[in-house]
Formats: sequence, structure tokens, C-alpha cells
Amino acid sequence: MGNGWITTLQTVMDERMINTSAELNDYRRSAAFGEYTPEAVVYVTTPEEVSRVLKIANEHQVPVTPKGLSTGLSGGDIPIHGGIVIDMSRWRASVEIDPEDLVARVSPAVLTSDIHAAAEAYGLMYPPDPSSSNISTIGGNLAENAGGPRGLKYGVTKNYVLGLEMVTPQGEILNTGGRTIKNVTGLDITSLVVGSEGVLGIITGATLKLIPKPAVTQTVMAAFATMELAGEAISKTLAAGILPAKMEFIDQACAQAVEAYEPLGLPTDVEAIVLIEVDGHPSAVREEAGDVAEIMKARGGSRVRTPQTEAETQNIWKARSLVSLAIDGIRPAKASEDATVPRSQIPQMMKRLSDIRQKYGLQLVVFGHAGDGNLHPNILCDPYDKEEIRRVEQAAGEIFQAALALGGTLSGEHGIGTMKAAFLEDELGAVSVEMMKRIKSAWDPNNIMNPGKIFADEGQKLILSRQVEQ
Amino acid sequence: MGNGWITTLQTVMDERMINTSAELNDYRRSAAFGEYTPEAVVYVTTPEEVSRVLKIANEHQVPVTPKGLSTGLSGGDIPIHGGIVIDMSRWRASVEIDPEDLVARVSPAVLTSDIHAAAEAYGLMYPPDPSSSNISTIGGNLAENAGGPRGLKYGVTKNYVLGLEMVTPQGEILNTGGRTIKNVTGLDITSLVVGSEGVLGIITGATLKLIPKPAVTQTVMAAFATMELAGEAISKTLAAGILPAKMEFIDQACAQAVEAYEPLGLPTDVEAIVLIEVDGHPSAVREEAGDVAEIMKARGGSRVRTPQTEAETQNIWKARSLVSLAIDGIRPAKASEDATVPRSQIPQMMKRLSDIRQKYGLQLVVFGHAGDGNLHPNILCDPYDKEEIRRVEQAAGEIFQAALALGGTLSGEHGIGTMKAAFLEDELGAVSVEMMKRIKSAWDPNNIMNPGKIFADEGQKLILSRQVEQ
Repeated sequence: MGNGWITTLQTVMDERMINTSAELNDYRRSAAFGEYTPEAVVYVTTPEEVSRVLKIANEHQVPVTPKGLSTGLSGGDIPIHGGIVIDMSRWRASVEIDPEDLVARVSPAVLTSDIHAAAEAYGLMYPPDPSSSNISTIGGNLAENAGGPRGLKYGVTKNYVLGLEMVTPQGEILNTGGRTIKNVTGLDITSLVVGSEGVLGIITGATLKLIPKPAVTQTVMAAFATMELAGEAISKTLAAGILPAKMEFIDQACAQAVEAYEPLGLPTDVEAIVLIEVDGHPSAVREEAGDVAEIMKARGGSRVRTPQTEAETQNIWKARSLVSLAIDGIRPAKASEDATVPRSQIPQMMKRLSDIRQKYGLQLVVFGHAGDGNLHPNILCDPYDKEEIRRVEQAAGEIFQAALALGGTLSGEHGIGTMKAAFLEDELGAVSVEMMKRIKSAWDPNNIMNPGKIFADEGQKLILSRQVEQ
Repeated sequence: MGNGWITTLQTVMDERMINTSAELNDYRRSAAFGEYTPEAVVYVTTPEEVSRVLKIANEHQVPVTPKGLSTGLSGGDIPIHGGIVIDMSRWRASVEIDPEDLVARVSPAVLTSDIHAAAEAYGLMYPPDPSSSNISTIGGNLAENAGGPRGLKYGVTKNYVLGLEMVTPQGEILNTGGRTIKNVTGLDITSLVVGSEGVLGIITGATLKLIPKPAVTQTVMAAFATMELAGEAISKTLAAGILPAKMEFIDQACAQAVEAYEPLGLPTDVEAIVLIEVDGHPSAVREEAGDVAEIMKARGGSRVRTPQTEAETQNIWKARSLVSLAIDGIRPAKASEDATVPRSQIPQMMKRLSDIRQKYGLQLVVFGHAGDGNLHPNILCDPYDKEEIRRVEQAAGEIFQAALALGGTLSGEHGIGTMKAAFLEDELGAVSVEMMKRIKSAWDPNNIMNPGKIFADEGQKLILSRQVEQ
């Protein structure tokens, strides 16, 4: 790429483009690891603008990295090849609910929690609830196919996307899918694009499916001396024909971090705390919550709580939502993983994580979505400490391999990004990666869309270290 | 293509290949319209055999059409370009349930109803329930992304596929996805292949997600003097926060056909009969069924029934499942459509269907999945009557256009196949079709896999007439 594109882009975007090094410096970091500075940032607010920018980028073969509110944990929004960052954060946030057809039409820049609120105002629910809901936009959720606790019962973002508006790498504005719940017209490019991490184009709007909001919810919390016991209690609950909306767990280190951060009364002397939420019709919820509490007790759970007030319930879930923040403060950074295993393998995976912790002498804490096997091992570390970070990189590699060895996957909900790109073929095999790359090349022959994500560059490795700040 | 491939194929498949015209004649027809004879049929029973056949076909550029039990209604299994039919019906039927991970591992040749039964033996449920469940195999359900009544609450086939084993057009055996509920590793080629109607390769196995089986179900039936009233009652139920497992409807002509076929006590003097099933926890189901019955009555429903015995319940659903068979016998054939509209547009769509019926003087009956807007207009006709069939073709075209005009889709669950290929661009637009074709070309550059399906050949039109039998 030459540099003529900057002038062309400037003409189109005018004051909504920045390319001085001082301003660009703010774009060096994200929630993920690595520091990379783009050559230009543009603030887009319409599909037509995205189209114009992509046409210029495609003509000049300039890399493009779309960016929302930078909460992604796998590095999807890092401009590792420089080029243009398309910043979507100034796009107008909009949600329109159609209560009769049970759909929401959203702009890419709306906070996921605002979609929740808008739906609830009509007695409806948009189920996907990534823990970042109140700081992440739906555009990013769509690009990464975000999950969340309610994934157990309700599925993930992809299961609620009826249609997309997007811009192709050639700058064509495209509508996929539609407004109906059932739709099998043509190849399912809606599902292909959701979770494609920005490598196939830029999502500029979506039609989401809503469902009637369950009338009530009831939380149950239990403490377990060992992870095995917790795992068994979880399996037993599901085997009893109960499908809770959420089944979360927090390990001892996470519980201790939360209590140090804000005392909420979590037990800190047990290996695992399990948090369950059942939802639905009032009488069913009452009975099911009782059954869940009985199962917890019967399988070795202690201090079983079934909060009867809204305040107590909120307190419990606040503890879960504070985990990330609480462990954040312990060390300068954390490598957040989302290795996912078949539910029956959770105790095995926890054992392997414990071995990895000891082998590398790292602060490795674990929480996550126990009901669906989606764990969040977090390694607390200092990204400027080269020796420690090398251990973190090795440990992360072993975590990925452990998940795969147990029949799991590299990523349950964060995406591959730059973080796991080097490991993609280990999970999928060469043929699968080749078939995916064919789609990428067919849609984006100049490889301008988010290069280096999902598909590793030649020789690309997991690199977590940061440069020392200048 | 020359003819050398037949000899090569014969060497590989031996007695499991047929290519005499007498035997091939049996392959001339399917549940869909049109009669086409392949040049060879092979009976495959392993992925390796599929691989060998596809390698030969790809090398010689011979069209390949996979076929299960030929229950598809859009023409997915018709060899419109001759070539090889890959018959999967002799593949061993197998279902393995893993009750701990809540997954089923299935071969492509197992009947969908056998998956239901196998899951239920463990107190689990495989929710997708196409009306053809006991005569169609999961391979075809996967290729077409089959729906069914429970789609309203539980979604369609695609929502329950965790991973696939498939063979690419180049004969490579490929595993997609995995065994975990959450998985965002790489591009979602699992979702891309499910519903791709055989144009991207051949599915040879799948890992399916199961859920705990709801403890009980309760049926509610109501009769409505007008379609508008039925539509309002349906909307009102959903707006009350009740999400039934099924919300079906039968129009007057269908009810009369069923009663003529086997008297089951359906009201035949009303425009619409609505059949609802709520499922879940016993106490919730009891209350919700009561609420549904009240809503039906309040919105003009008459003869509201809430059957209390298994026999009475089965009788009601038998009426629904007999509709297809009952209308089958009235005329020599039926063109079964599945035009789907946003739920709020059902009364409008019914009005347009009534206009089309009168305009063309055809026997057009309607039943379907009212809760999700997925209608099944069926035109009863004689495919050997050239004049009538021309009217049917015109009427079908108008049905498609009416669905699109109301914000709907050409196909909710049957697929595009040959039936709707000519109309694809009307719904999707040129850019969308172009992006889909890029994927098809990238995966199958020689266009051997099921050519003429989804993507129309140059000048391809909807043709429903059959040749007079020789």
C-alpha cells in the first residue's frame, strides 16, 4: 500500500478522521494484549460511510480493523497490521422493538444492556447476556458471537439474529436473512457472518429475535469443598430434567478476590461456589428452585441459600459480576481465556488447570459458566515482566491443549482473534482451516478485513508482552 | 463429462452401483415435482466411500445429487443434471446418546423419530420435529435445516447442531464444530453447511445438542369463525408472556379433508382451527393451559378443548398430522409451499392467499405453524394437466411475491431446491446472491454438488408439470 489512500480518505471523512501520532496513540491498546498503532482512525455513522471507506481501503489494499467499545478479550479490534481503524462508537445508538413480531431492530452501536432494557419494557427478553453487557455494543457481540451466563438455557448471540445489514470488503451494502423466525432461503450467510470477528465485512445493523420474558427468576447458591462435588451437583441437576437459565461457578481464589474487593459474604474457605438461576412460570420456579437446593445439599453442597428478597439476590449476582473487576486489581493485567469443554469434563479440566498453575508458578484463577462447560481461566500477570509473560504464554498454550485433549474448544465465547490464532489448526485440522480460508479469500480477495485475526499470519505466535511505555 | 467415469465408479462401488435404465427409472421421481433420471446410483455406507465417489465425480466433473428417503418438498434430491445420485438410505442408522454431556451422535441415515425416541429413553429431548419425522432421515433434515411445530419455542434443526462430519466436493473428510454448547472457534461452517441443500458437500454424521425433556405437555384446541380472530388470539397469547411449544392452525378446507379422510371430530364450519401445546413443569403447564384457553375464549374462540386424557390429546394431534395425507388423496398431486411471513402478517397473508385462490380458480388449502408465521399453502392439482399446472405455476409465483411483499421469506423450512430457485434474487437481491455464489464456487469450483439447487441455472423457471408416463 502506498500512502495516497490517506489523502483520499481525508477527503471523504474530513474532520471525522484522525491521523496524527498523538491522537493515534490512544488507539494503541484495547482490553486484549498487544499494542499496535493504526495509520488512520475514521469515525463512521452510516452504512454508506462504511461503504466509502471500504471501497478506498480495498482499492489501495489497506488493512481495516473495525472497533466498538474495545471490550473484546481475544484481540479482535487490534490493528496488528496498521492501516485504518473504523471506530463505530459515534454511531447513533438505536433499538426499535416490534412487540407483535417479537423482533428488535438495532444499530451496531447500542449497548447490549440497552437492548435488554428496551425489550423488558414490553415484557420481552433479549436473552444473550455477556458479562460485558453494560459496556459492550451489539456490533461487537455480533462480530464475536458473544455468549454469557444465560447461554446454558437460551443459547448465544447467533441464536437470536434473524438478519443483518453489513458492508462487504468491496463496500457493497448487503442485507442478510429477514424478519421471520424460520428462514431457509439461500446459504445461511447470517450465521456465517455472526462470529466471523470482522474478517468478512462490517456489521451495520441487525434484526434480533426476542422472546416473552420469564415471569420470575429464583437464585440458588451453594458452596462445595471440592470441584468434583460441584461438578456432580451440576450434572445431577440437569439429569433431573431441570434446565436453569444460569449455572455459574467461582473458584476459591476468585471468591477471595471478590471479598477483598467488596465484602459480600461469599464463602472463601471452599474450592467452588455454584450460583444457579431458574426462571419461568412462578409455581414452576418455586418447585424447581426447591429441587435444585435439595440436589445441592444431597451432593455435598453446604451453606445453600435461596434468597427471598431482591436485595439478597442482587447481592449474590453482584459477587459474580464483580469477579472480573476484583481480579483485575491484583496484578497489572490478566490473560482471560474461555477454553470450553464438554460439561462432563469440567472436573478433569479443573485438575489440569491446577497442574498448570503449579507447573508455571502463576496466579491462575477460574470462574465461568459451569452448566455449559465454558470456563474462564484467568492468569494474573505483569505484561511488562518479560520472564513472567513467557510463562504465561506457555501456560496459555497448555490450557488450550488441555481443552482440546478433553474434547473441548479453544474458545467458547471470546473468539479467536490474535490470542488463539496460532492454535486454530490444532483444533480444526488442516482441511477445515483450508475450507474457512477459501470463504475468506472469496469474500475478501485483498485480505483487507481485519487481517491476522482467526487466521494466523505466517509464523504468528501468541504474544502477550507489552512494550515498556515510552 | 465423458463416460469413462462410469467404469471407474463401477470399479469402486461394484454391486452397490446401478446404471441400467430399468433400475434407474425408479429414481425418476421424488416427493417434489419434476422427473429426472440419473446416469448412475451408488449406495454409500461410509464417509470413505462418499469420499471416493466425490473424488471421481470431481475429477470428471459429473453432477452429484445426494438422496435420503426422498421426503423433501423443494426438490433437493432431484438429479436435474443427471450424473450420480448418492443414495444414503442403506447407511447404518445409529444414534448414541451421551446423557451427561446432553449430546447425541448420529449417522445420516437415522430416522428423526428414532432420535426422538433414543433421547426420550434418557429423559431428554431432541426438539426439532418436522412433520415427516418418522419417514425422513436426519441427513436430509440437516441438509434442509428442517423446522417443525416446536420451532416456535425451541428453534429449528440448525439450533441443535454442535458439529458435523462431512465430505467436501473434493472428497476430503471434514469435521466441523465439536461437542460443546458454546464454540466460536473459526468461521461457523457448521451453520453454513446445515441448510445448504447439498450444494457444499455431503453430511455423513452429526453431533446434536439435547435438552432435558419437559415433564408434561397440555394441548388446547379452539375454533375461530375468521382467520383474523385466530391471528389475534395467537398474538395475544404470546403477548401474555406464554411461549407455547407449538401453535398450529388448519383452515376450513384442510379440516374438511381430514374429516373426510378419517372422522376425528374437527369442526368443519369455521375458517380456522388453532392447536396449541404448552410444555414444561406440571404446575406451570396447568396454569398456562388455563390462561391460553381463557385467551382463546376472550378473543372469539369457540369449542375450546383442553383434553385431559392421552387418547384425546393424541386424537387432536393426529388430526394435524393427517392433514398432509388427507389432502394428498383429493387430487393427483399437491404443490406444498412454506412461504413464511412475520407473525403479525398472517391475517394479511391469508387474505392474499384467498385472492390468489379465486384469481386462478385453484384448490388452495392452508395449514401450518401459526406461532412463527410459517404457512403451508398447498395447491392441489394434476401435474399432467398442462393448462391447470400453468395456473399453479403462476399462483405459486404470486404466493412467493405476496410473502416477500409482507416482509416474509420464500421458504421457512422446506428449502429453495429447484422449486424456488428462480425466485431467489427477488428476496435476497443481487449482492447477497453474489456473495453466496462466491462461497459455492470457492468450495465447489467444478459445480458438481447438487447443481441447479438454490442457485438457478441460466433461464431456469418454476416447472411443475410432469411428462405423461411412458
